[in-house]
Amino acid sequence: MSDTLAPEAASSQDRRTVRVELGERSYDILIGCGLLAEAGAHIAAVLPKARVAIITDETVAGLHLKPLQASLDAAGIGHVTFTVPAGESTKRFEIFERLVDDVLAARLERGDAIVALGGGVVGDLSGFVAASVRRGMKFIQIPTTLLAQVDSSVGGKTGINSRHGKNLIGAFYQPSLVLADTAVLDTLPLRDFRAGYAEVAKYGLLGDEPFFSWLETNWQAVFVGGPERDEAVARSCQAKADVVAADEFEGGRRALLNLGHTFGHALESAVDYATERLVHGEGVSIGMMLAHEFSHRLGLLPQDAVDRVEAHLTEVGLPIRIQAIPGQMPPAETLLDIIAQDKKVSRGQLTFILVRAIGDSFVEKGIDRTQVLEFLKEKLDA
Amino acid sequence: MSDTLAPEAASSQDRRTVRVELGERSYDILIGCGLLAEAGAHIAAVLPKARVAIITDETVAGLHLKPLQASLDAAGIGHVTFTVPAGESTKRFEIFERLVDDVLAARLERGDAIVALGGGVVGDLSGFVAASVRRGMKFIQIPTTLLAQVDSSVGGKTGINSRHGKNLIGAFYQPSLVLADTAVLDTLPLRDFRAGYAEVAKYGLLGDEPFFSWLETNWQAVFVGGPERDEAVARSCQAKADVVAADEFEGGRRALLNLGHTFGHALESAVDYATERLVHGEGVSIGMMLAHEFSHRLGLLPQDAVDRVEAHLTEVGLPIRIQAIPGQMPPAETLLDIIAQDKKVSRGQLTFILVRAIGDSFVEKGIDRTQVLEFLKEKLDA
Repeated sequence: MSDTLAPEAASSQDRRTVRVELGERSYDILIGCGLLAEAGAHIAAVLPKARVAIITDETVAGLHLKPLQASLDAAGIGHVTFTVPAGESTKRFEIFERLVDDVLAARLERGDAIVALGGGVVGDLSGFVAASVRRGMKFIQIPTTLLAQVDSSVGGKTGINSRHGKNLIGAFYQPSLVLADTAVLDTLPLRDFRAGYAEVAKYGLLGDEPFFSWLETNWQAVFVGGPERDEAVARSCQAKADVVAADEFEGGRRALLNLGHTFGHALESAVDYATERLVHGEGVSIGMMLAHEFSHRLGLLPQDAVDRVEAHLTEVGLPIRIQAIPGQMPPAETLLDIIAQDKKVSRGQLTFILVRAIGDSFVEKGIDRTQVLEFLKEKLDA
Repeated sequence: MSDTLAPEAASSQDRRTVRVELGERSYDILIGCGLLAEAGAHIAAVLPKARVAIITDETVAGLHLKPLQASLDAAGIGHVTFTVPAGESTKRFEIFERLVDDVLAARLERGDAIVALGGGVVGDLSGFVAASVRRGMKFIQIPTTLLAQVDSSVGGKTGINSRHGKNLIGAFYQPSLVLADTAVLDTLPLRDFRAGYAEVAKYGLLGDEPFFSWLETNWQAVFVGGPERDEAVARSCQAKADVVAADEFEGGRRALLNLGHTFGHALESAVDYATERLVHGEGVSIGMMLAHEFSHRLGLLPQDAVDRVEAHLTEVGLPIRIQAIPGQMPPAETLLDIIAQDKKVSRGQLTFILVRAIGDSFVEKGIDRTQVLEFLKEKLDA
């Protein structure tokens, strides 16, 4: 016997499973290194006899498509692959329509699965395709970015963008399985990993001070890979799974997940989702900073909590000011108008996720427009 | 006191309510004369404070839009109206996309409602819009055809057509309320009422011999209006509600509702949904006749049951033979290919709803292609 562990045996010891409890729609998120190469076996276990359509983008296809296809072949799963351009602009009607047509042309049936291999764009788009073809096919998420692993692949939000805003067209549609292979995160540019980390930090800030504190200590280990990275992904998935299980259709508590997103979405929209200027997680980072500052402004949050958020986000290299976004930004009135059209608006009143302390967020409905406007003006002038 | 009843008082005595039991997604179908004029009050009772977008078609708008709008005004419900062309070709991607954009441009929110005023085309299309905008708005059905009142408005199937087949893109999405005003059926051309009647007869044939027998006796009274018409609508809705409650997502028993539809859809597709040649209910009528004849061919159903179906459908003026469809039909091989692409196909095997007796249908999977092909060839040559 060699005393060297086979890589597979080593990695399966490190697998974590997070269960999303949604009654008949419950599913597992598997987290660990090397899952991509075992995807076929995991899919076959959950959906015996299903054929699959892989939807991926050009960038991810070059990095991770072959191992996935090989793994499906090994499990005897028939597959077709549809590749879309990388980038947020792919989440549009024209591409949605084309994919729906492609899947139908491939004669996939209701019991067959769409497999999303990619980041949030691919996952959101593919999920809406899965929800809409034959009124609902099976759906598997294989998220390849940190953002997708800790956020967009979990919870069933799918959709595409509209000229009126982001994610305004879509469905709540749960996957049958999520495979988060943390090894693929090694292929991410630092900027993308860092942006995804904003969502990781968010779970601490919205409801888990000990996790935020753990991140303050361990963030470097998370960034360089290893067990801390898996731990951060698993704790984030667990946090999201808990919220989603309590409120699948965003009637209440799920709105907490939007901490930083009301401001963040407005900033993304203001730059027309131009990712060279701002990616989602960066918008969330600035948005979280603004949410904490706004909470302080309203007399809800002490300054030292604001400082602590600022210190950590700055330390990891995330932007925290609107001025960090390259190029011209629209005036505060325009940002407010974008916020008002955001789907988190309820009956004309502005809803914000505010913070009483690190790890203690809450939904505040009926925020006064004028206060937001003044706050934004000041932040734009700062 | 006058001894003449006010029309409203008279009609509310005749109201029937069918409850569709789907847990949190349960809803009522109200059936009776004059409901359109009371729509605002009924909607306000179910969705207080909601604004609505009415989606209707040009034909129905001319007949029934004003009373609905007046009723919403009277109830203080804000509304916008979007009108689409009448006809099956309206159930297409381009119009779906435009409506989604219209509803977003009108700044309707998640708690606001789409109101479908029209037949099956408007209901199916509007329901998919309601399901997709902001990942799900509220939805109200006001079906104006017999077909829509007894079938498409109940049960939550929404969708549009694809070049690959009918209703291949959509969602299961339940309404909050269905208002079936039987008075509007007076504005239907006889051909459309008759086509809708095919679905009424279907409920008897698939699971309720006493209802079929009642229809054999009372069909003329159903056609000319009056209490028998309301009774037929209510019994049909109840039958559909029972099946849907038992199997919302068509995993099993709900497939029985497709009696006559496998053949019927193939015929509709074969004429490219040209309604001057064949409307849906006529396809269903021919399809039900074929399903009974095919069941007889397989040795499952006695000839006298076949004769009874033939006699009743013929008596009411519905077509029962493929030859009744004007113009050229494609060969049997093409029809079979259409059937194979139909979404009722499961893992490559053909599934049919077959019949053991009047009112005793069942799902038969794994039907042999050759037998279907031989049967269709014979029917096309007959």
